[in-house]
Amino acid sequence: MTDCVFCGIVSGVSPAHVVYSDDDVIAFLDLSPITRGHTLVVPRKHSSGLADLDPEIGGKMFGAGQRIAGAMRSSAIGADGVNLAMNDGRAASQTVFHSHLHVVPRHAGDKLTFAKGFLTRRAGDLESTAAVLRSALESQS
Amino acid sequence: MTDCVFCGIVSGVSPAHVVYSDDDVIAFLDLSPITRGHTLVVPRKHSSGLADLDPEIGGKMFGAGQRIAGAMRSSAIGADGVNLAMNDGRAASQTVFHSHLHVVPRHAGDKLTFAKGFLTRRAGDLESTAAVLRSALESQS
Ligand SMILES: [Zn+2]
Ligand SMILES: [Zn+2]
Repeated sequence: MTDCVFCGIVSGVSPAHVVYSDDDVIAFLDLSPITRGHTLVVPRKHSSGLADLDPEIGGKMFGAGQRIAGAMRSSAIGADGVNLAMNDGRAASQTVFHSHLHVVPRHAGDKLTFAKGFLTRRAGDLESTAAVLRSALESQS
Repeated sequence: MTDCVFCGIVSGVSPAHVVYSDDDVIAFLDLSPITRGHTLVVPRKHSSGLADLDPEIGGKMFGAGQRIAGAMRSSAIGADGVNLAMNDGRAASQTVFHSHLHVVPRHAGDKLTFAKGFLTRRAGDLESTAAVLRSALESQS
């Protein structure tokens, strides 16, 4: 799995703007966010999709996504809503074949911005965004 | 919570095309599916969104979604991919305020159909679709 970009992040070989991390999962900012704060939660252990993902780890990914969603609402990200999404398979728009849960902050009335975001995903200031979310997550626990 | 349509389904007062059910969650077909087989997984205990959803139950919802995704691939639904999605908050397109996870079967090259499906969601033959998924889930375990 040496070619897997997310395994590279898990092992620390590749840099990432990490938002959250525990023994089972790691969460970092998407480099091409649909909206500011767009985060990916991935299992530390490689699995390509739902078929080979340990259900217990899947539950932990969801739990991390739930906590991050709370941080998106409580922090300066100021989310009014959040989409959690896992795209399983190329037909479902999966592009990196290491399981990942998208956590996407939403704002009231942002439907057009959100739709455009799929086309023009830009990085913005990822490190300050990650710092905002990390701080909100620390104050949760 | 007497006005909650999903609590009505959980309690058995309202009919639904049930695909899967256990002590914590119940899954049934969306009445206005984006694609054939579009299923919703809901907790039996009412929660309006991620903020008041027991994380353990959230993990079980995800696990049920994962199993149903497998059934969508292995059954006559013939999914090539599956989207799992939870929309939390009106800003994120949540319309029923009882937490629910969308499980949407996808097929290679269906992007246009999928996009159109958001506009023209039609029921189709729900009961035969539910039977196909129930049967595939039973043969999994
Ligand atoms: Zn990997
Ligand atoms: Zn309810």
